[in-house]
Amino acid sequence: MIKAGIIGATGYAGGELVRLLTAHKEAEIKWYGSRSYIDKKYADVYQNMFRIVEERCLDDNMEALSKEVDVIFTATPQGLCASLVNEEILSRTKIIDLSADFRIQDVDIYEHWYGIQHPSPQFISEAVYGLCEINRERVKGARLVANPGCYPTCTTLSVYPLLKEGLIEPNTIIVDAKSGTSGAGRGAKVDNLYCEVNENIKAYGVAVHRHTPEIEEQLGYAAGESLRINFTPHLVPMNRGILITAYASLKREVSYEEVRAAYDKYYASERFVRVLDPDVCPQTKWVEGSNYVDVNFKIDARTGRVIMMGAMDNLVKGAAGQAVQNMNLMFGLKESEGLELVPMFP
Amino acid sequence: MIKAGIIGATGYAGGELVRLLTAHKEAEIKWYGSRSYIDKKYADVYQNMFRIVEERCLDDNMEALSKEVDVIFTATPQGLCASLVNEEILSRTKIIDLSADFRIQDVDIYEHWYGIQHPSPQFISEAVYGLCEINRERVKGARLVANPGCYPTCTTLSVYPLLKEGLIEPNTIIVDAKSGTSGAGRGAKVDNLYCEVNENIKAYGVAVHRHTPEIEEQLGYAAGESLRINFTPHLVPMNRGILITAYASLKREVSYEEVRAAYDKYYASERFVRVLDPDVCPQTKWVEGSNYVDVNFKIDARTGRVIMMGAMDNLVKGAAGQAVQNMNLMFGLKESEGLELVPMFP
Amino acid sequence: MIKAGIIGATGYAGGELVRLLTAHKEAEIKWYGSRSYIDKKYADVYQNMFRIVEERCLDDNMEALSKEVDVIFTATPQGLCASLVNEEILSRTKIIDLSADFRIQDVDIYEHWYGIQHPSPQFISEAVYGLCEINRERVKGARLVANPGCYPTCTTLSVYPLLKEGLIEPNTIIVDAKSGTSGAGRGAKVDNLYCEVNENIKAYGVAVHRHTPEIEEQLGYAAGESLRINFTPHLVPMNRGILITAYASLKREVSYEEVRAAYDKYYASERFVRVLDPDVCPQTKWVEGSNYVDVNFKIDARTGRVIMMGAMDNLVKGAAGQAVQNMNLMFGLKESEGLELVPMFP
Amino acid sequence: MIKAGIIGATGYAGGELVRLLTAHKEAEIKWYGSRSYIDKKYADVYQNMFRIVEERCLDDNMEALSKEVDVIFTATPQGLCASLVNEEILSRTKIIDLSADFRIQDVDIYEHWYGIQHPSPQFISEAVYGLCEINRERVKGARLVANPGCYPTCTTLSVYPLLKEGLIEPNTIIVDAKSGTSGAGRGAKVDNLYCEVNENIKAYGVAVHRHTPEIEEQLGYAAGESLRINFTPHLVPMNRGILITAYASLKREVSYEEVRAAYDKYYASERFVRVLDPDVCPQTKWVEGSNYVDVNFKIDARTGRVIMMGAMDNLVKGAAGQAVQNMNLMFGLKESEGLELVPMFP
Repeated sequence: MIKAGIIGATGYAGGELVRLLTAHKEAEIKWYGSRSYIDKKYADVYQNMFRIVEERCLDDNMEALSKEVDVIFTATPQGLCASLVNEEILSRTKIIDLSADFRIQDVDIYEHWYGIQHPSPQFISEAVYGLCEINRERVKGARLVANPGCYPTCTTLSVYPLLKEGLIEPNTIIVDAKSGTSGAGRGAKVDNLYCEVNENIKAYGVAVHRHTPEIEEQLGYAAGESLRINFTPHLVPMNRGILITAYASLKREVSYEEVRAAYDKYYASERFVRVLDPDVCPQTKWVEGSNYVDVNFKIDARTGRVIMMGAMDNLVKGAAGQAVQNMNLMFGLKESEGLELVPMFP
Repeated sequence: MIKAGIIGATGYAGGELVRLLTAHKEAEIKWYGSRSYIDKKYADVYQNMFRIVEERCLDDNMEALSKEVDVIFTATPQGLCASLVNEEILSRTKIIDLSADFRIQDVDIYEHWYGIQHPSPQFISEAVYGLCEINRERVKGARLVANPGCYPTCTTLSVYPLLKEGLIEPNTIIVDAKSGTSGAGRGAKVDNLYCEVNENIKAYGVAVHRHTPEIEEQLGYAAGESLRINFTPHLVPMNRGILITAYASLKREVSYEEVRAAYDKYYASERFVRVLDPDVCPQTKWVEGSNYVDVNFKIDARTGRVIMMGAMDNLVKGAAGQAVQNMNLMFGLKESEGLELVPMFP
Repeated sequence: MIKAGIIGATGYAGGELVRLLTAHKEAEIKWYGSRSYIDKKYADVYQNMFRIVEERCLDDNMEALSKEVDVIFTATPQGLCASLVNEEILSRTKIIDLSADFRIQDVDIYEHWYGIQHPSPQFISEAVYGLCEINRERVKGARLVANPGCYPTCTTLSVYPLLKEGLIEPNTIIVDAKSGTSGAGRGAKVDNLYCEVNENIKAYGVAVHRHTPEIEEQLGYAAGESLRINFTPHLVPMNRGILITAYASLKREVSYEEVRAAYDKYYASERFVRVLDPDVCPQTKWVEGSNYVDVNFKIDARTGRVIMMGAMDNLVKGAAGQAVQNMNLMFGLKESEGLELVPMFP
Repeated sequence: MIKAGIIGATGYAGGELVRLLTAHKEAEIKWYGSRSYIDKKYADVYQNMFRIVEERCLDDNMEALSKEVDVIFTATPQGLCASLVNEEILSRTKIIDLSADFRIQDVDIYEHWYGIQHPSPQFISEAVYGLCEINRERVKGARLVANPGCYPTCTTLSVYPLLKEGLIEPNTIIVDAKSGTSGAGRGAKVDNLYCEVNENIKAYGVAVHRHTPEIEEQLGYAAGESLRINFTPHLVPMNRGILITAYASLKREVSYEEVRAAYDKYYASERFVRVLDPDVCPQTKWVEGSNYVDVNFKIDARTGRVIMMGAMDNLVKGAAGQAVQNMNLMFGLKESEGLELVPMFP
């Protein structure tokens, strides 16, 4: 039985980790870290866990925690994990960091986009970017996994095959993303109040969103060259779900079958990526509560572009689910253990 | 492995049965009946099931079906199950009927409230009302289970202990109920369009809703006498969830502890009924996707009344989940098999 | 042109006052008071007002304000208006207080339910309860109007005729209320975040909500005797709207026509109360954005009770609209001036 | 007083026309045409109109109608207006067609994208495309106005200035659009049920949506050359509102001030187009219920692109509001008559 600790267990991603690990047959949670709710019963913060979780919240002591558990999940703001981690801790326990601290290999880019100094750049090169479908083998041997951001996960998986197969022009990629509101976290801000979000849609972080360099780095690996994209996220009045609609110019005329073959080449045997039937557009509701990413594409011969689409649950494949998938890989478990969740509809 | 057939597999309750049975370790679905979608791939109707269910929809042939499966679930409009069932079928297979056909023992009351003639009243007395927490032992031996209505399940479980213990006046009970829109079914009606339901709340079926006699019958058993209640359902802009707020006059002054003891007497060892902590009001979101019913109460000494509250997911404990719970009992499986679902929040 | 000042202009009720007064032909806003946003452009707080309101927010100085305007609206937390008002101010300007400070005639009841000491009880008896349809004549001569609470407005208008005509037993009244989330205000609290409210319904303030004594006082006037009710509010995932469902025992058998006549007696010539056709249930969406209250009833002969229903927009008739209606009465304008808003659907 | 008739008065756009014209000081509705509800009271179809509209619905007889009114609004499916209109009717009355029948000058393109034969191509060249801000003078003299589509209105107004001023490459334009569900109409379809739309987002009509050629034609006029765009609409879980996010490559390096000047050149004196302050992103909620279009832009120097954004209420500026604006122009009224609606928030 793998012993897990969570730092930041009372945010939405932390709460989803608790939901998933509670039902996981090979793992148990030993530490519910939450600076804001120390000593409070966890189930008093998330009443869905009443009679399921009896433990109380603890402080964010990674030092102490590392002596008690096999794996630590950090579902915390940028900079926290990087400021707590050290060689001693890493020698005792594995870390899956859900923040952005170790996702970007170039520390200057991280510091530029995040506006903070990186507290422990020495661990960046060691960290494995935990996009399981792409980096599966490297994840298996990792001590420190940088769990991908929600937008980068959905975008990369939607665009990767066409870039890798050289079908699209790298610098023409435009990603228009839409996210449910749980992506904004559980902090009490006026902008996230029900009445401000409901019956409303808006773009935010236009041209400056922090997931941009993360996406560019990952897509750059696929393209074999550095590239620049436009990335525009939007806030949608729903709890869960991310949909990305990506546009790129085709390098040449292609058939449906050719493009489809590119997707199948990478995803035919993937448990969690579903390439949909022709002309079926991904919908976030079809993956809600599950670890699936649904992807599809449409060729527009008129404009010489391809439209790539992807949908997933931002709290599952976009955060906690992928973290558990990484844990499974790191500990030699079945990759889908605890993640065989059937999407809930409606 | 129990073989199950579903008649009405493409309604919302049928879809939820598919979600639950797909993940059930001791059962498998052998028949996806859907008159509206015969020969269509089930996953083309519910795309969340893409790559999970490969079968196509079949007709509603209960005769044929009964030769292939151990249990038939009928998630169909009133009158259908009763018109198809016969002794031969029942001798071969068990039936769990999610419609109201066998819920009401007095056929005159059924025919009065439902406005149709009962096609097979001879099976009514045999049918067991499948409210597992109350009728557990009788369900175990049943061939034909009448799966309770969503409102009656939530209401009965919320009110039962106080009636049974004689703490409240039976004829003072008023039930004000609120339901998510999946309770209205998947039929294409203007009233259920997104724009008609969203940003709106209304009562419906005031003083004439068909669940009234079902609730009265069940509460009458608890009271040991017949009774009449007011029951008013409301349509709420959300997909899932039922909340009931029930009012009754106390027979005498009572303490919190006395009332709490009444609830604990019946529910302390129940897996799926959670009696919440003092002053915590049930919320539908805390049980979403799970088979839990959360109940609680508040004594109002000023008026001599008690307010009883209950929340559950109308598609799980209010329909498909309870149906599976009944199946588990009927086949001697662990009662919670396939139902140990952690509520999803947010 | 009436000069108006608003204290608390950046809450939701304050914002609605701005929307209504901006379009009012006989009034203009001279003071946008908002302690939280002093010196900030009002339209930067509420971008819907961009290019409509050019002014900046000012402090809550009632003394200064009273020298510049004819009427002050206070859309502020309990206790604030009562702590600022004095004889000098009232001699210069009229006040319409949207808080509860002057709604309850018995100061002990106010202090008991609100848990604060009343700062200026000497003005309570002078204050007129601004439920225009009931107290029209007294409002016309008032210096200080206590603008009714949202729930009390909807409840009183729905129940008043039957109590006044002696058709129902006063102490059997139970009010089950449902409100959109704007009623919870614009404060940044976790409980009001989009993800906490969406796809969720709950009761709150059960048996202790502060609007209870206000409703009891007003219904007591109608009954001609003091009475006690049960009042249970619920939070609904929608921005605007209040629906109340009220239950009471009939004193004797009554016909539809008799009850209907009672409603018509009081409302037939009312501009803003619509008694709906038989069996049509009020829906909040049908009054959204308008000053209407839609009411109707259903007799349940089986239980000897009547179910009374009322729907309105909590920010209009439940707050800002009624405040403007009161202003119109106080200044001798047409009562519906600035309030002839057609409900918006969908 | 202008006499108006509406064909298709019970769809959502028709209903919005009724809301607007009811409050319009210089117009009155003489004919509520609705094939589906002939002889039914209009207020029984839209209960928000109870006690506001007393009339009953009539048939779609344009011949009869043209003898009674000064202007006919057709809010009907494609092909209907074109099949009813003739010279005699046009000689008696003006027509504002909210369908696509007369929006596209090239009848082949119309027939290709809409898949129907155009019943009266002889009127196409006479019809004026009623995008008031662009074609104001021509609208004034028109007998037949083609009221623009919702997406084309929002897109054209957002992109027009930069194309007209030659700042962007025409063939690089990509329009990613998001619409509330009222845009899908009031037809009873499973896809538009509450439970299918709520908590969900999807693209639809990818690369084949019928508004594509309409946008291309209008943008082509601005560019002075024909162009091809990508246009992808998405369905958002909200009632009202359209947001478009458009991308284009800049022809050269530009400053904020230059781009801003382009917008101001065309919109500085426009009543209904609001160019927002720097870095403020349009939100649909800020324009809800009003005739405003909020636009803004962001230069992304990294990629050499500009992101253009526009938000409006699809039923007002995107349909009924613009139709009334056109009526005002055609009859020499103040352009904003009946349209000075303050957006409703929240």
